[in-house]
Amino acid sequence: MEAEFLRWLKTTLQLQTQTHPGIGDDCSTLVLEPHLTPVITTDSLVDQVHFDTAHQPLEQIGWKSLAVNLSDIAAMGATPSYAVVSLITPATYSLAELQTLYKGILSLAMETGTQIVGGDFNSHRGPLTIGLTVIGQASPSQLKYRFATKETDRIFITGPLGRSIEGHHLNFTPCLAEGRILASFPAVHSITDVTDGLVIDLNSILPDGLGAILDADRIPCRNPSNDPHSDIQHALFDGEDFELLFTVDSEFDIKDLTAALPRDIYEIGAVNSNNRISIKYNDNNIQQLDITGYEH
Amino acid sequence: MEAEFLRWLKTTLQLQTQTHPGIGDDCSTLVLEPHLTPVITTDSLVDQVHFDTAHQPLEQIGWKSLAVNLSDIAAMGATPSYAVVSLITPATYSLAELQTLYKGILSLAMETGTQIVGGDFNSHRGPLTIGLTVIGQASPSQLKYRFATKETDRIFITGPLGRSIEGHHLNFTPCLAEGRILASFPAVHSITDVTDGLVIDLNSILPDGLGAILDADRIPCRNPSNDPHSDIQHALFDGEDFELLFTVDSEFDIKDLTAALPRDIYEIGAVNSNNRISIKYNDNNIQQLDITGYEH
Repeated sequence: MEAEFLRWLKTTLQLQTQTHPGIGDDCSTLVLEPHLTPVITTDSLVDQVHFDTAHQPLEQIGWKSLAVNLSDIAAMGATPSYAVVSLITPATYSLAELQTLYKGILSLAMETGTQIVGGDFNSHRGPLTIGLTVIGQASPSQLKYRFATKETDRIFITGPLGRSIEGHHLNFTPCLAEGRILASFPAVHSITDVTDGLVIDLNSILPDGLGAILDADRIPCRNPSNDPHSDIQHALFDGEDFELLFTVDSEFDIKDLTAALPRDIYEIGAVNSNNRISIKYNDNNIQQLDITGYEH
Repeated sequence: MEAEFLRWLKTTLQLQTQTHPGIGDDCSTLVLEPHLTPVITTDSLVDQVHFDTAHQPLEQIGWKSLAVNLSDIAAMGATPSYAVVSLITPATYSLAELQTLYKGILSLAMETGTQIVGGDFNSHRGPLTIGLTVIGQASPSQLKYRFATKETDRIFITGPLGRSIEGHHLNFTPCLAEGRILASFPAVHSITDVTDGLVIDLNSILPDGLGAILDADRIPCRNPSNDPHSDIQHALFDGEDFELLFTVDSEFDIKDLTAALPRDIYEIGAVNSNNRISIKYNDNNIQQLDITGYEH
């Protein structure tokens, strides 16, 4: 069965990558653009930590495992080029289950132009584990690092936050186009993707000494309930939203950005020199936030 | 504890990589040589499949997890440049255990000039799982692919085979220098590393239609017993030797190769057009070999 899966995989990947050198060899060769800077990211997902095979379809789990890596590529303003996939599955998996899982990875790979050029397959008695490493490329002048945030920057998010666990975390599309467009604007100082939660991820793009104030009324909430306070708590701390969180120079005319982007963006606060993250509610009550987030 | 480990790791890696851009960011930037070709390999190791935490030191397990990946880099004739490490550990691990494991990875990384530029850390209820992806670089004219083996090639190995399970698989040094030197000779047609076993790995570098005959008397055996036949069976089928298996043009004067290499090499057979792999024993008995090897 393992041999059959590997044969299917080899044929499938060869179709996808055409005559790419090195598929099935000790290493695979990467063909990179000389004028671009390569970037690398890796994320492994494990059953009962990042997904739940008892209740979630394998194809969506495969999709998610690539999507979370591509979200990191998007947050650098880069374009994905290559991926390698390390699969460790329960020994009981059937060929059909392995193929279904892999099809989820492949469909997002093809949609985003990510060539899967290598990998590794093992079965064991433990949980399904999917490890991906993705190589992307970006123009060196456009790469967005953390900590380039400035003291008076405005803070934006590409979409609603919170309650991702209800489904979004499994079927989201990584914000690759948004990342590339944002990165092309020098006025966009920092970008990250919301994975651990808005507050903790915002903290990760604030240099030492800087803080931020968020505006509760302007934070878009996913699947809002009839309890706005609860919605905001979910938006602040849930994580796995995979929206892009970015800071923009306060003197920049934001219309140029919104005209270029394929989606609405939401201004949710501003950077300041307070060295802490606070939130202002619509009764003008300001509350300091703990720097905590989602623990898998 | 997890936070403490990540702080230690960040400091440790920053020391190792100095001012490398992107450490701790969504992605890390790779600085590659424009005249070299980048190659990529990935291998994940799991407790009770590739190692045994109950009986083997964590530092050696860490070392092995990088070494098996570097062995693939060596088999391409490439030099390792960067690695990303994905650690999934039992939730019960102490800070000291995590550090010991990581020190095994780091010591080999430093010895081989491999910069660890990123990674991922999770804990769960399952077994220790270590996923590594390594990026190497090689001169495009020197990259050695499989299947370049020619019909009359001579077959060589860089060291003894078999019984790796007695210790070698945990503490071997990947043949990076040997791989680079071998790759610099156009007369060396194919290189691979012995991971699944001599016979199955030899088969992987034989193009369709070609076969090989091995000479039992000339195969170097690790930890030989007083039963030469048993030693040969271990050498043929055990795997995890991580020696380089390579084929050389039959018209090439091998002295040029041996003079350049830091270690002895062993001629163990010859390629032919028989489409099967056989072995000749010292009583001139010739036996066809099954294409099987080590299953984890």
